[in-house]
Amino acid sequence: MSNRTEIATLGEFGLINHLTESVKLQNESTLKGIGDDAAILDYKDKQVLVTTDLLLEGIHFDLTYTPLKHLGYKSAVVNFSDIYAMNGQPKQIVVSLGISKRFSVEDIDEIYAGIRLACDIYGVDIVGGDISASLTGLCISITCIGEGEKGKIVMRSGAKDTDLICVSGDLGAAYMGLQLLEREKHVFNGQKDFQPDFGGKEYVLERQLKPEARKDIIQMLHNENILPTSMMDISDGLSSELLHISKASHVGCRIYEDRIPIDYQTAAMAEEFNMNLVTAALNGGEDYELLFTVPLTDHEKIEKTEGVKLIGHITKLEYGNYLVGRDGGEVELKAQGWTAEKGM
Amino acid sequence: MSNRTEIATLGEFGLINHLTESVKLQNESTLKGIGDDAAILDYKDKQVLVTTDLLLEGIHFDLTYTPLKHLGYKSAVVNFSDIYAMNGQPKQIVVSLGISKRFSVEDIDEIYAGIRLACDIYGVDIVGGDISASLTGLCISITCIGEGEKGKIVMRSGAKDTDLICVSGDLGAAYMGLQLLEREKHVFNGQKDFQPDFGGKEYVLERQLKPEARKDIIQMLHNENILPTSMMDISDGLSSELLHISKASHVGCRIYEDRIPIDYQTAAMAEEFNMNLVTAALNGGEDYELLFTVPLTDHEKIEKTEGVKLIGHITKLEYGNYLVGRDGGEVELKAQGWTAEKGM
Repeated sequence: MSNRTEIATLGEFGLINHLTESVKLQNESTLKGIGDDAAILDYKDKQVLVTTDLLLEGIHFDLTYTPLKHLGYKSAVVNFSDIYAMNGQPKQIVVSLGISKRFSVEDIDEIYAGIRLACDIYGVDIVGGDISASLTGLCISITCIGEGEKGKIVMRSGAKDTDLICVSGDLGAAYMGLQLLEREKHVFNGQKDFQPDFGGKEYVLERQLKPEARKDIIQMLHNENILPTSMMDISDGLSSELLHISKASHVGCRIYEDRIPIDYQTAAMAEEFNMNLVTAALNGGEDYELLFTVPLTDHEKIEKTEGVKLIGHITKLEYGNYLVGRDGGEVELKAQGWTAEKGM
Repeated sequence: MSNRTEIATLGEFGLINHLTESVKLQNESTLKGIGDDAAILDYKDKQVLVTTDLLLEGIHFDLTYTPLKHLGYKSAVVNFSDIYAMNGQPKQIVVSLGISKRFSVEDIDEIYAGIRLACDIYGVDIVGGDISASLTGLCISITCIGEGEKGKIVMRSGAKDTDLICVSGDLGAAYMGLQLLEREKHVFNGQKDFQPDFGGKEYVLERQLKPEARKDIIQMLHNENILPTSMMDISDGLSSELLHISKASHVGCRIYEDRIPIDYQTAAMAEEFNMNLVTAALNGGEDYELLFTVPLTDHEKIEKTEGVKLIGHITKLEYGNYLVGRDGGEVELKAQGWTAEKGM
């Protein structure tokens, strides 16, 4: 059995020291991190990007099958993804944790280890936060600050008629991973050491439990001298995000079913679950891929770009938002219904 | 009976629109607020300050006696206070809310109205956030971004031997307000329209339920050309904060019991509760007054300054941290034990 240190034995200041004493700062823009009333940053001639995410136990994550270190990693990465989606670079985060008595110091270490690993990989500094007792479940609130170059920040609102619609990676895998975990949940619920056989399904599980933000795509676009006209990250599903871009840009869109990138594991899982594959890819959510539009003149560059797929094009507003099926039939894209949470 | 609109009737995007559609931006540094993956800010030659606070139901607030509008107001103001404590100006906040089913749209409107009122009064823009369902209680996480002038930002670490120790306002009132509310809690618990008689106790209640941040003191110091050598806001009690300054500045301190500013209502309440008044003032917490040190040469200026009291002086590290009693006896200042939450 693993050690269990009660949080009360450290006290709250003790816990903060324990978690943060070895935090090293790596960004020039971080002048002062943890240890005062506020962190001090200097962005010089860069613009500042700010995004925040609140993750609540039982709503955004289920600790039955979510390792705490993965949870910490994902909590940080989903914020980085929002900054990349503005064509920016995440630089700092502040991390607030609400912790119920059920959690030990070792548990919190695991969450923090995941957050720190994500920060190391993506080059982000932890510069502050808050730790609190919680009467109920675990609560993780992270705000990420990033930098963007003047004139290079990409919003949702810049898509123009004839622009090409692109997505990075593939879609629907995180959603299928979630379905798989939920199905197996009763099997390993309460059995700490039981491990269901997930052989051959590693990819969809990793997409759900330990997603990555597409820093590489942002770097690649920069290297190729491609500046998207609009961009978002796909957290609520392609369909929902496309409608956001259309609305913010006052345009319509056509995307093509046979163009939507889907991994074979996602397809296999959809078949196993007897689910519509395209629906999963359109509405699944939590892909954290980038959806962006580029001018038609970037067509050749994009076609040559690895890891990016051209899935359709922007139209005039009056043509609406449609998915063109393999048979040529058109289906209007619909916004999803209520989901657990939505960033502003 | 008041109207009750279920949050599900609006949906989540609907709720966000409802809350934010009339948000107006007032700061030059806010280029883009709510509505994209991240807010865009431009701080030009100013430095950026970041602070965050997590407030959880049952830990930081008790809805039995806390009006939702006051709660929203306080949630914002405690963050502003941290920015002022760096000698900065709060400019933007992002607001995340975790909401259980028990709350109606009207309830959330009340919280948001309080946050917006605070923002209006202190000149702060709401530039983003997150809204989520919560399986349990109410959760409010606010991150505040502010600006500071290069070379004028004041940390905890700059206090020097012989510096004067000053506090704004008076201490212990918020703590006595909390004692009063807790005592009366059983009386109006569950009785919506019952109002206990708080006549003559308005000040301590207001200090607990609707504190203000000392923007005015920061302005006054600026006008008087006083740049503190160190500064903090008093959220955990004077004693605890003084020890933070001593530790960060590698100094000791002497403060004088008869110098500690206490309101007569606080004194009356302490007597009614048979509590030690000085203990309440030293350890009470939630005062949100400013504690700062100034060079000895600013003595005359500080003596003339309204709303600021000189309570002692900084010493060499080896002299330790002491309270000098009315009788001349010295008591070592001790850190408080575990409290519900602590900012980093």
